[in-house]
Amino acid sequence: MVFIVKKKINGQEYYYLRASTRVIVNGKTKVKAVNLGYFGKDRKKAEQKLFEMNWVGDNKLNKLGFTKQIMAEKNEKKFEENKIEAEFRKALMSFVVDKGFVYGPSPEIYGGMAGFYDFGPAGKTLKNNIENAIRRLFNKFQFFEVECPIVTPKIVWEASGHLGGFSDPLVKCTKCTSIWRVDNLIGEEFKVDADAMTLEQLKEFLKTNQVICPSCKNRLSDDVKKHSLMLKTQVGLDTEMYNRPETATTTYLPFLNYLRFYRERLPFGVFQIGNAYRNEISPRQHIIRGREFTQAEAQVFLFKDQKENFEKFSEVEDVVIPFFTAKNQKENKGITSLTLKKAMENKVLKNKAYAWTIAITYQLFKSLGFSDENLRYKQHMPEKLAFYADDAWDLEIKFNSFGWVEACGVHDRTDYDLTTHGKFSGKELMAINPLTNKKEIPNVLEIAIGPNRVLLGVLDNFYDKRSEEEGKTKLRIPVKLSPIKAAILPLMKKEPLLGVSRKVFEDLSNEFLVVSDETGSIGKRYLRQDALGTPICITVDYDTIEKDDSVTIRERDSEKQIRVKISELHEVVRKVIEGEDLLKLGKLVETRVKE
Amino acid sequence: MVFIVKKKINGQEYYYLRASTRVIVNGKTKVKAVNLGYFGKDRKKAEQKLFEMNWVGDNKLNKLGFTKQIMAEKNEKKFEENKIEAEFRKALMSFVVDKGFVYGPSPEIYGGMAGFYDFGPAGKTLKNNIENAIRRLFNKFQFFEVECPIVTPKIVWEASGHLGGFSDPLVKCTKCTSIWRVDNLIGEEFKVDADAMTLEQLKEFLKTNQVICPSCKNRLSDDVKKHSLMLKTQVGLDTEMYNRPETATTTYLPFLNYLRFYRERLPFGVFQIGNAYRNEISPRQHIIRGREFTQAEAQVFLFKDQKENFEKFSEVEDVVIPFFTAKNQKENKGITSLTLKKAMENKVLKNKAYAWTIAITYQLFKSLGFSDENLRYKQHMPEKLAFYADDAWDLEIKFNSFGWVEACGVHDRTDYDLTTHGKFSGKELMAINPLTNKKEIPNVLEIAIGPNRVLLGVLDNFYDKRSEEEGKTKLRIPVKLSPIKAAILPLMKKEPLLGVSRKVFEDLSNEFLVVSDETGSIGKRYLRQDALGTPICITVDYDTIEKDDSVTIRERDSEKQIRVKISELHEVVRKVIEGEDLLKLGKLVETRVKE
Repeated sequence: MVFIVKKKINGQEYYYLRASTRVIVNGKTKVKAVNLGYFGKDRKKAEQKLFEMNWVGDNKLNKLGFTKQIMAEKNEKKFEENKIEAEFRKALMSFVVDKGFVYGPSPEIYGGMAGFYDFGPAGKTLKNNIENAIRRLFNKFQFFEVECPIVTPKIVWEASGHLGGFSDPLVKCTKCTSIWRVDNLIGEEFKVDADAMTLEQLKEFLKTNQVICPSCKNRLSDDVKKHSLMLKTQVGLDTEMYNRPETATTTYLPFLNYLRFYRERLPFGVFQIGNAYRNEISPRQHIIRGREFTQAEAQVFLFKDQKENFEKFSEVEDVVIPFFTAKNQKENKGITSLTLKKAMENKVLKNKAYAWTIAITYQLFKSLGFSDENLRYKQHMPEKLAFYADDAWDLEIKFNSFGWVEACGVHDRTDYDLTTHGKFSGKELMAINPLTNKKEIPNVLEIAIGPNRVLLGVLDNFYDKRSEEEGKTKLRIPVKLSPIKAAILPLMKKEPLLGVSRKVFEDLSNEFLVVSDETGSIGKRYLRQDALGTPICITVDYDTIEKDDSVTIRERDSEKQIRVKISELHEVVRKVIEGEDLLKLGKLVETRVKE
Repeated sequence: MVFIVKKKINGQEYYYLRASTRVIVNGKTKVKAVNLGYFGKDRKKAEQKLFEMNWVGDNKLNKLGFTKQIMAEKNEKKFEENKIEAEFRKALMSFVVDKGFVYGPSPEIYGGMAGFYDFGPAGKTLKNNIENAIRRLFNKFQFFEVECPIVTPKIVWEASGHLGGFSDPLVKCTKCTSIWRVDNLIGEEFKVDADAMTLEQLKEFLKTNQVICPSCKNRLSDDVKKHSLMLKTQVGLDTEMYNRPETATTTYLPFLNYLRFYRERLPFGVFQIGNAYRNEISPRQHIIRGREFTQAEAQVFLFKDQKENFEKFSEVEDVVIPFFTAKNQKENKGITSLTLKKAMENKVLKNKAYAWTIAITYQLFKSLGFSDENLRYKQHMPEKLAFYADDAWDLEIKFNSFGWVEACGVHDRTDYDLTTHGKFSGKELMAINPLTNKKEIPNVLEIAIGPNRVLLGVLDNFYDKRSEEEGKTKLRIPVKLSPIKAAILPLMKKEPLLGVSRKVFEDLSNEFLVVSDETGSIGKRYLRQDALGTPICITVDYDTIEKDDSVTIRERDSEKQIRVKISELHEVVRKVIEGEDLLKLGKLVETRVKE
């Protein structure tokens, strides 16, 4: 049962959503109740919210198993169909909370707001490692990182078209007041392509078709309204500003400054890793579709002729990409794997510069550990391209929990952005093309990566769950992504073991993120680190003290152990992080330290 | 002259602020005009804004030298008094734009909104290096990073007290409609401590004193209004949320989750590096006091008894800190330098845990290269402490451009935050104290660092400006902070120099952020890198090809050069980054490569 309760704090009334259910404790039936969320200071509004929850799909309601048939889940019906997927998803969701990767919706103690999450100690560190891998990739091509404000003036989004176009069509049931996303609703029920419909077309559809409210079964009216996805705020006394819906647009604005930094020479790239906001009416799929999310977006500025004539293409022309072309999608065919050279010959891709962005992003995802089978490049259907875009492909990761998920998009944005911001600002956003010696508005190729999705993809793909008896759940992530690079474990919490162990920690912690874990059985300590993805555990035992000044290093995946001198430890850890095989870096030993 | 102009774009009217002035070009007087900012779609509002600019202090107005007597500058009068400081500031401000460190106010092409800045290619990379130094410090103590949402529900800020108390007192002149910050105004004019005054006291002051509008010289009324510093937005259909005014509060909320991660054992620390927002009515001092800014804040959770009994204190008790105590401030005395041990004995600091946070932050700033003379720890005056705070000190950096600037604060927040959020959420934010075996609400020690201020402080302290003839302006920052670690320069843009140079780049760029700079005289290329703070330049010349497979490495500060085998180059670069002296890593040579 779900209901509203009132609470008085310092004389002020607050309303909370509360749920109760019967549970069996020691053979007796008990009523267990829990606060699910803060619902404001107005009872009427709180009650309306409770009503709306039937379709918004607040995760909290699920927790205790109430109202299972909420709309968000219904929209995701296809995912539920696969039971194994659903079960894995459930295990993964509990794993990410339990091990400190992702908490939420946040703030949990206040009930949580759908679409907002906390990255815990393990999760944020993993996220940093992913972002650093992206940084390294871009830096290698002399793309520099920049940071532009999240809060941006209205005119920016008028110019970009977001204020006009960035919205969802909603309809409110006149009978039960439920609110629905019209495009999703008729897309599901009538199997029509509602994404591409204009507001007028949607209204017309509701007028001529009997579209039913899934909640009260009443016929829906044609009163479709646009719900803006932008988060508005006010700065100064009354200046309208917005939390940006994407980083890309904010990256374009200082173009003339970058031009000076790169000494007027194109092509050059800059990138930004930062937050963006979309006020989705029903955020879903955990951190895959949040209201606040991180983007890592690179923008390559280049002249049109440089797209065809792109030097670096030759370095990647033999890279094989699994293409899921628009044609294949239409004809219900699978993936076509081609080298980029072949893809250019077959006109799968339009120009060499664009092909190069496909190659480097694919290689990035491979370097993050994803297997070829779990990656594909999917083309946008031509009829769904943004009107200014010349071509667009999404790099998708296959999740065990959520199916194929877009994690990176590569877009040829032509000269649209610099043209429109030039027009609105009255500034010339141009550079001199050495080929013609004339000023030209450059084109932009955009590489847009979603670090949050990559993070969940990594956890999903490398989470090796075991049953409780087996008890060896592991996170088999690549070493460079591991939040903790090594754990230092004294065999017992006693001197002189403790002193030596702390010295080892002191030395390693100057360079690497390592932890010292001093309590519990050694086996349990290994398990803890395995589940966090820590690649190596270093154990200080009595032989260390009495015999050989060496320590045992246990490898996460093979569980094999080697013996290494303390004086060589620092170098060994560095080599493991750089990708060398631990087992080749010391003498393999019989399991000395019992798990 | 400053005026409003109308512009029509796609049929819609937009208003811009435009300025014109007479300049002399080739001996002839010309009128030069420039758009300064976008002022919205409403003429009346645009005009009102123009009027308000007289006190808001928009930087753009300064650029062309109009309306010099703007209020923001007036408030900063003390800085203007020092001419050397003012001159240095001017040079620094132009340097940071010119070299790609900081641009703004942002977005510049739309006129810029005061208090918002872009970090350019060099600036963002420097900022990353500063943040990574902070990360490394905290990680060494096994503090883990977390990330909590920027956009947070209203109740969080009701509980924290920000919604009630986080505001500035403003008064509007009834005659000329200028708006003033009352506390600043009467603080300046009457030399009273207006910061500590309540709204009622401020009103009373205006009633009983003749306070004059600095703009129209009319007497100001006592109609003082609170201007909230919070940025409000709306999520979902109508949920009131805020862009957080600090990271700290959002870090506290998942306390119970951290407790699980740290296996119920205190003390432990977590930290967050992320953006926060303050809607200052007149943002000033460049990125020192922006409306959007980054915070790096660590929270140490510990029981009250652990504050006195803090193991790690012994490791730092001999660290000497320049204390600027409340007592010294009151008595117009200078700094007292003491070891922490002495400071504890003299009761300058209240407990060992707090003293430890003072030590590690001071050491951090030292490791960023700041000299002892340019650092001090300044105590908050007891009467200005937040009501819940037990003690508070600010680590200040002495800028050549802005005087002493707070860059880090260490606050004993007692159990205030966990208590209040426990109360408002109805959750028990407690842990079991092993000493008493009872549940207790932990205390929090907060370390709050402002990376933007540190960044400007670094640029300010290490910017070594030279005259144009001398022509060797250098940014003498510590190697670990340098945005670019090495530049690779072929003596000429010709084969085979180019090929070898690119191979060197290819190898180094796998691990380090390096650039390849192939055009211009070698001397000019050195100068470019000197100004960006690049510690070493690697030159490939004809000897490399014909004789010795070696390259010349030039050190930024000494301008001395050594010769190193290409095969050893990678290791040499790594050692330089780790802090070793370049000149000891190879054979010193006479200047082979002419500058």
